[in-house]
Amino acid sequence: MLYFENDYCEGAHPAILQKLTETNFEKVSGYGTDPYCASAKEKIRAACACPEADVFFISGGTQANSIVIASTLRRWEGVVAAATGHVAGHEAGAIEFTGHKVIGLPQKNGKLDAATVEDFCKTFYADSNHDHMVFPGMVYISHPTEYGTLYSKAELEALSAVCHTYHMPLFVDGARLGYALVSEGTDVTLADLARLTDVFYIGGTKVGALCGEAVVFPHGAPAHFMTMVKQQGALLAKGRLMGIQFDVLFTDGLYTRISRNAIETANALKKGLAAKGCRFFMDSPTNQLFVVLENARLTALEGKAKFGFWEKFDDSHTVVRIATSWATKMEEIEQLIALM
Amino acid sequence: MLYFENDYCEGAHPAILQKLTETNFEKVSGYGTDPYCASAKEKIRAACACPEADVFFISGGTQANSIVIASTLRRWEGVVAAATGHVAGHEAGAIEFTGHKVIGLPQKNGKLDAATVEDFCKTFYADSNHDHMVFPGMVYISHPTEYGTLYSKAELEALSAVCHTYHMPLFVDGARLGYALVSEGTDVTLADLARLTDVFYIGGTKVGALCGEAVVFPHGAPAHFMTMVKQQGALLAKGRLMGIQFDVLFTDGLYTRISRNAIETANALKKGLAAKGCRFFMDSPTNQLFVVLENARLTALEGKAKFGFWEKFDDSHTVVRIATSWATKMEEIEQLIALM
Amino acid sequence: MLYFENDYCEGAHPAILQKLTETNFEKVSGYGTDPYCASAKEKIRAACACPEADVFFISGGTQANSIVIASTLRRWEGVVAAATGHVAGHEAGAIEFTGHKVIGLPQKNGKLDAATVEDFCKTFYADSNHDHMVFPGMVYISHPTEYGTLYSKAELEALSAVCHTYHMPLFVDGARLGYALVSEGTDVTLADLARLTDVFYIGGTKVGALCGEAVVFPHGAPAHFMTMVKQQGALLAKGRLMGIQFDVLFTDGLYTRISRNAIETANALKKGLAAKGCRFFMDSPTNQLFVVLENARLTALEGKAKFGFWEKFDDSHTVVRIATSWATKMEEIEQLIALM
Amino acid sequence: MLYFENDYCEGAHPAILQKLTETNFEKVSGYGTDPYCASAKEKIRAACACPEADVFFISGGTQANSIVIASTLRRWEGVVAAATGHVAGHEAGAIEFTGHKVIGLPQKNGKLDAATVEDFCKTFYADSNHDHMVFPGMVYISHPTEYGTLYSKAELEALSAVCHTYHMPLFVDGARLGYALVSEGTDVTLADLARLTDVFYIGGTKVGALCGEAVVFPHGAPAHFMTMVKQQGALLAKGRLMGIQFDVLFTDGLYTRISRNAIETANALKKGLAAKGCRFFMDSPTNQLFVVLENARLTALEGKAKFGFWEKFDDSHTVVRIATSWATKMEEIEQLIALM
Repeated sequence: MLYFENDYCEGAHPAILQKLTETNFEKVSGYGTDPYCASAKEKIRAACACPEADVFFISGGTQANSIVIASTLRRWEGVVAAATGHVAGHEAGAIEFTGHKVIGLPQKNGKLDAATVEDFCKTFYADSNHDHMVFPGMVYISHPTEYGTLYSKAELEALSAVCHTYHMPLFVDGARLGYALVSEGTDVTLADLARLTDVFYIGGTKVGALCGEAVVFPHGAPAHFMTMVKQQGALLAKGRLMGIQFDVLFTDGLYTRISRNAIETANALKKGLAAKGCRFFMDSPTNQLFVVLENARLTALEGKAKFGFWEKFDDSHTVVRIATSWATKMEEIEQLIALM
Repeated sequence: MLYFENDYCEGAHPAILQKLTETNFEKVSGYGTDPYCASAKEKIRAACACPEADVFFISGGTQANSIVIASTLRRWEGVVAAATGHVAGHEAGAIEFTGHKVIGLPQKNGKLDAATVEDFCKTFYADSNHDHMVFPGMVYISHPTEYGTLYSKAELEALSAVCHTYHMPLFVDGARLGYALVSEGTDVTLADLARLTDVFYIGGTKVGALCGEAVVFPHGAPAHFMTMVKQQGALLAKGRLMGIQFDVLFTDGLYTRISRNAIETANALKKGLAAKGCRFFMDSPTNQLFVVLENARLTALEGKAKFGFWEKFDDSHTVVRIATSWATKMEEIEQLIALM
Repeated sequence: MLYFENDYCEGAHPAILQKLTETNFEKVSGYGTDPYCASAKEKIRAACACPEADVFFISGGTQANSIVIASTLRRWEGVVAAATGHVAGHEAGAIEFTGHKVIGLPQKNGKLDAATVEDFCKTFYADSNHDHMVFPGMVYISHPTEYGTLYSKAELEALSAVCHTYHMPLFVDGARLGYALVSEGTDVTLADLARLTDVFYIGGTKVGALCGEAVVFPHGAPAHFMTMVKQQGALLAKGRLMGIQFDVLFTDGLYTRISRNAIETANALKKGLAAKGCRFFMDSPTNQLFVVLENARLTALEGKAKFGFWEKFDDSHTVVRIATSWATKMEEIEQLIALM
Repeated sequence: MLYFENDYCEGAHPAILQKLTETNFEKVSGYGTDPYCASAKEKIRAACACPEADVFFISGGTQANSIVIASTLRRWEGVVAAATGHVAGHEAGAIEFTGHKVIGLPQKNGKLDAATVEDFCKTFYADSNHDHMVFPGMVYISHPTEYGTLYSKAELEALSAVCHTYHMPLFVDGARLGYALVSEGTDVTLADLARLTDVFYIGGTKVGALCGEAVVFPHGAPAHFMTMVKQQGALLAKGRLMGIQFDVLFTDGLYTRISRNAIETANALKKGLAAKGCRFFMDSPTNQLFVVLENARLTALEGKAKFGFWEKFDDSHTVVRIATSWATKMEEIEQLIALM
């Protein structure tokens, strides 16, 4: 069975397991105050060219989104997101559970446009009844998006400018950030994110870690952020698990190197499928390909290859997601192409 | 430096790291639907002699407490706990953050007494204004308690009976449950917990795992519990991390075996300190000793031994917590006794 | 100045003030346990032909919506509403503040269609990942809608059937219900609402009361509803204020009679404006007219007539809302027509 | 039947009903933007000698407490209150529903002592783990307290100083404030409250209004307070109902004058009961008397006089609350004394 259902089906990069094993009996203090967390944070600050950043480790993406948003918004504010954003549709109401509305705006290829945000804000503040409405308090985007697409630097700059005008922190969900940073043709770097956003996270779970996301606040975290992390149940006693993983990932460019594997295998697959006449639902430059398959074809592949169901295309076709990862082997790609 | 500050200063039992490494490149499905989670759940059900139990894995104790309580209580209810209970004082308001009150009752040695709970409920329902008050909706206890003390089977049975009378689920926080189960003189087993409670958890973080608690609902979980876990941000994509750890811990009695080490080292330490004339703040039969030290003594020990600060005893004395764990070596105990 | 900005610019029907005055020094018990509340509830049950209904009084519409929804939904559920529904856009996030998502669906003339709801539910349950999403837990509609439009009995029956299929209580916001019930051509009665919904409210604030909405649960209220009302701060000590108002409104058909005045004046105005060539934004059969005016015209009317701003129509036109009420006089209508 | 169960059993002062009637058909704008609200606020500012104060009207006490506290606290903070404070025990968990803990401290005669608060804060900040705990974020007291007792100016000054030291706003629940201000021997004025607190409210519901509390922020309200009031469902469309009532109460000293009646009747009753040998549970200088009665005596009075049940005193005695109000007649007092 060829397994392309998602990018979290393997464990961790072996260097992480090795380091966990080597350091296992060192006694360190808890709750993220250990030397591995300190070292990882320092390396992340360096990678972001942002020596003043505050860095925190959270064990998963929904948790990171929920904590960052609920710790940033004020009571009368909601978070602006693409209607297809992960926080809008696929987190079981985690944001609303903390008391805040997700204000879903129209998207294009999974992306939120600066002009869309600006129009929304203009209309909002022009409405004489806006005191009876939820204020747009911050903007959430994902990079790569849920469709594997990417913002250009110019698009991020435009969004950042609108956010600045309307005093809304800009938050980038980077659950798959590694795959964005090494995508062919991207012009967005970690330093750009640090420069243009107020908070973003560097995804570990989907890029070589067992679990963990590194939340970066380039201009400093909200007051008492650690207490709020605890309050939402996300402060691991053995913070070393986070520190060691990110320390390894940010040593000698490992994070970048393993991210590249996902892109190379995805690109090879894209080329191979195109040659076979496959139809793509959307052009995606990262590790997720969205392919339109005949339902009969899909049935025929059962037991041979596993994809992620994305959505119904029409009565006889389905959109599937095929995901590569840091761990995908080129031979799996070849086998899959042969199969299709 | 001798490190006795807490029981989460080391990594994981080596067998866990070995299994994580061995299985690392197996591709498994996410969110706890993998075969390791299934196997671990089956072993836990067997260990609890409760084949019908629902088992879930949550990455930490505060998170487990918050999710279990917020998923069990109805809107008009609060959770009854000892005033010294972890949920009452040391979780940054995690329960209140979900909208529920912690109803703190008087405790003795960290324990909540069935009679105390019964009196509270009687008074509550006798009050003609109780519709304007927070209803007691469930009871939370910890075993071992925050003071390392234990409930006897008779005490648990009495509590369970009161809970039954007043239709309050009984919830046992077992963050250090392993150390309770193998404590000398305890008569409480996993099967007893499954019989007497509605939900309890088997702590991993403090008993050999990198992270993780196994939440057991002997009579079945609340409807849509998984969605509520997701809503509170606690559903790990790589559920295998939980499954593998608990599968290892519940293979060949490892959980029990390593728990015993903490008790043996704690008992040796207790005996040694008593021989040196040390004064105990409270008699504790598990892995945490609470010792009253002169402040001058404490200063002298700085840099040589590290303890947990517990509370001020009087102007010249302090209560410290000395914790052993699954990983504590007998030679460390000997060195500490020599030092005191 | 002719004032048509809204339908809550006057005080209360004089019969209410008279009854408040007459009964002022009677000593009655608090929190809605007085004889006036009992009498009003009985009359409302009779008017709804629903002798088993539970009736509660809440002082305002947003409060009623928030309490009913937050007391009905379970934690993993959200409320389905038209994207233009009051709860979706104009209540400052009151629903989200209680932890629940408003699931906004497309509307037509402010109305939610049974087919739209059914399609949404079908797609939702067909999605293999719906456990990671907010479940549709109840349906909210307003009658009249925010655009003054009305559901037909057949439309309500269809919605009710879909709600029943998917186990979603149907909730009708009747802030302006009186105006719906007496609208020409409507075939929906109070008894129909009691038969087809799980909860609805009869608006007082906009139909002759100083404040207050009568929430009716035809099949019984959620357990401990009164405690939840208290928890959200909505339990008035002097419940008599609510009881007396609704007792008066439901004596001798007063509620219906005064509602009719709003419809008659609105109809006269509609006819008069049409004769003057005014353009209507939407056809509305109740007490709110939505008229497209040239901006220059609007400026000319300043200081002479006051309307509610609704939305920008195009660069040179604006949509305004002109509202009549139980208290509008026919001579005001004539003056307004003359002015336009 | 002599009715002394509470101080909200009558309607409103007749001058209020008269003004509501006189102004009934004036058309005014909604949501508290009408001229009566403006006038009432101006008069309240003058009465408080605090021309810069922000004033808002909320319809009830639990609602005022919940909104003020939830709008003032930051996420990591709780509200400090006497364990007997209304917010701690008798509001159905309204504060926790908004996500915040009520930190209950020991009280004496219903009052919170500056030293108690200071000790708590000192211990809190001395605890090296306080980042894992709920921060004391504001202090709530009631004046009169739930036991009818009063703070002296010196006590308030001491509390205010501690609050200032620890950056905690001081909030005074004045549900029965009128009765405090005119109590014999009090040295606390409205101007003192404005000087020493950050927010307090002037109770209307229990002092002559149908409903309503005037919330006063001497140094300005939290940003977007009105939106938060709306979010919690407490913004009345017909704000005039609040404005007119407080405008009348603060015209020509009516609020003070009618408060005095409650004190005079309470004092006469206290004297009369003492002469009859009645035993007081606590000395209370305001409109609530707490009397210890034999259960047999209580049974004998059934059907003749109605009191509030307070608490069980011992097996044969009960503490009852006897409340006078702005509307109590001296002849009722005489009848009650005769009866006892």
